[in-house]
Amino acid sequence: MSKYWNDKVKEIEPYVPGEQPKDKKYIKLNTNENPYPPSDKVIEAMKIAVNDDLKLYPDPTCSDLINEIANYYDLDKDQIFIGNGSDEVLAFTFMTYFSKDRKILFPDISYSFYVVYAELFDLNYELVKLDDNFDIPLDVLKKPNGGVIIPNPNAPTGKYIAVEELKKLVEANKDSVVIIDEAYVDFGGESMVKFIKDYENLLVIQTLSKSRSLAGLRVGFALGHKDLIEGLNRVKNSINSYTIDRVALAGAKAAIQDNEYFKEITKKIINTREKVVSDLEKLDFRVLESKSNFVFASHNRVSGKLIYEKLKDNGVLVRYFNKERIDNFLRITIGTDEEMSILVEKLNLILGEI
Amino acid sequence: MSKYWNDKVKEIEPYVPGEQPKDKKYIKLNTNENPYPPSDKVIEAMKIAVNDDLKLYPDPTCSDLINEIANYYDLDKDQIFIGNGSDEVLAFTFMTYFSKDRKILFPDISYSFYVVYAELFDLNYELVKLDDNFDIPLDVLKKPNGGVIIPNPNAPTGKYIAVEELKKLVEANKDSVVIIDEAYVDFGGESMVKFIKDYENLLVIQTLSKSRSLAGLRVGFALGHKDLIEGLNRVKNSINSYTIDRVALAGAKAAIQDNEYFKEITKKIINTREKVVSDLEKLDFRVLESKSNFVFASHNRVSGKLIYEKLKDNGVLVRYFNKERIDNFLRITIGTDEEMSILVEKLNLILGEI
Repeated sequence: MSKYWNDKVKEIEPYVPGEQPKDKKYIKLNTNENPYPPSDKVIEAMKIAVNDDLKLYPDPTCSDLINEIANYYDLDKDQIFIGNGSDEVLAFTFMTYFSKDRKILFPDISYSFYVVYAELFDLNYELVKLDDNFDIPLDVLKKPNGGVIIPNPNAPTGKYIAVEELKKLVEANKDSVVIIDEAYVDFGGESMVKFIKDYENLLVIQTLSKSRSLAGLRVGFALGHKDLIEGLNRVKNSINSYTIDRVALAGAKAAIQDNEYFKEITKKIINTREKVVSDLEKLDFRVLESKSNFVFASHNRVSGKLIYEKLKDNGVLVRYFNKERIDNFLRITIGTDEEMSILVEKLNLILGEI
Repeated sequence: MSKYWNDKVKEIEPYVPGEQPKDKKYIKLNTNENPYPPSDKVIEAMKIAVNDDLKLYPDPTCSDLINEIANYYDLDKDQIFIGNGSDEVLAFTFMTYFSKDRKILFPDISYSFYVVYAELFDLNYELVKLDDNFDIPLDVLKKPNGGVIIPNPNAPTGKYIAVEELKKLVEANKDSVVIIDEAYVDFGGESMVKFIKDYENLLVIQTLSKSRSLAGLRVGFALGHKDLIEGLNRVKNSINSYTIDRVALAGAKAAIQDNEYFKEITKKIINTREKVVSDLEKLDFRVLESKSNFVFASHNRVSGKLIYEKLKDNGVLVRYFNKERIDNFLRITIGTDEEMSILVEKLNLILGEI
């Protein structure tokens, strides 16, 4: 604490990301990274972009990358906003669309950064309680509000809402923006992107960190009506003109271009997930239905905390949240088939000993 | 304008960076980029960092890079904060140290982003008028305040304040933070970094964009007492856990390591600047004394706006600010000797025709 901090900084509780341990090599199933490397074409494009032009500022409008995404999703260029990871995009949405006088709504069990943003920017919010099946109660979200945020699929549950249901919510919510955070949508979900042309109040957020194997690159984006995008640009250009570096711009563009590789690895992860779900169920886990690159599971006999600790001792990192209602669950990222076999083997061992 | 923007977003006036034209090739002396490429060692380190590990998040604590800077400046690790360009660092300082109840002070002719931050975060501020020689009146800054920001050297004037004078200001200002924005200090100025151990209220901000030829990489940093740095980390970790990508971390580290190349190119730029000042004076320009990688000059006969336009027509871009008191000046970045010869040649031509 310092007398030079303002009151807000004294009171905020920053977000705590998953462990990134340096002490030893783990099978890392704790931060929802993709187990497969980025496309060769991404690596190649980035290597080319590492050149003497780094002395010059990058394109502040991210024009080439935006062209590529516009092309990929059949959108206009002014319907796309690029940020330094989807977390930055999310932070900017809180600064752009929300005000103190109307409550934002989002699920109580969800990406824990939403609460942090709301607190940081001094906004009122209501945590909407997931039902007993860990589903988001969409009807509750239809009450008057200053904005709605839904991660679809949700994290850490992995549960998914059909786009037809979300459309009804967007339609019922004309007075504020509905943000669909699609960080994990490429692992079996359907994107809301195709409905952007129909709604002025729909903003879709995606990232290259998960399905495009580029967590280390820091590129996320928002898709929506041009007025929503213009608002985000106003905020961004009041904070930092050049948020994306030259090499990241080149890598991101190549990642969007290589659709074939993207399809191949997301399919692999989906297949691995289905096998892991079945293996975990055989080990007496309850596994929530997942459309993401992780599963959320609790054991019917042994506590989540204990399994988390034992797995860590055995060189496998998963994510454990010490939080009401989910403190018996583990969030397990889908790795390669080989990594998941080791997980199952270790679980077998651990559960056998308890 | 959109009904979904909050009031703040409706009223803000975002910062406008210098032109980055794509229509044709200019001699680009308008955004204070370094005319020399980054060190070969930076290029090499970045190429190595473009690898399959991009699938993993970067180190959120920027530990390796911080070690390198700590070593370079003989600071502790907890006295260093890394941001996505010094603009992001500056934005975070406004969020960390300032409150609405006490006015921030900064010069009226200065980096125009300061006003944008103050407006965005709803802070009160006072623009302290530069004196008739375009010097910052340090005595005026000693009145009660909620924070002081001084770019040293100042931009766009290029004028420099001796560290002994700044020390007196920091000492007289124990109730709030004094931020010295040293984006241009490596071109002949002396850094305040060596006094960080003496003051709890001194924060120094630097960037790799100028003297290390890495405008395209987006890395800046703040140096100060560990409590000041902890405050910045609290804000950063409430917005975006991973602000610096893997390749940028590697490049920035290599840039700090290669001190020899850094010294060589900054010396070259200083030498070129001294020659250009003399050439401009011969052409009847008034040139303010500069310790930066640009000069600020007005012609005794012809308007700055006209010279700016004519230069642009002749393929040379410089920066013109249509702003009271400086609307007759041009800010000219120091390029290579060859580029500056062309500038002088074009000026000769243009001035001869008017």
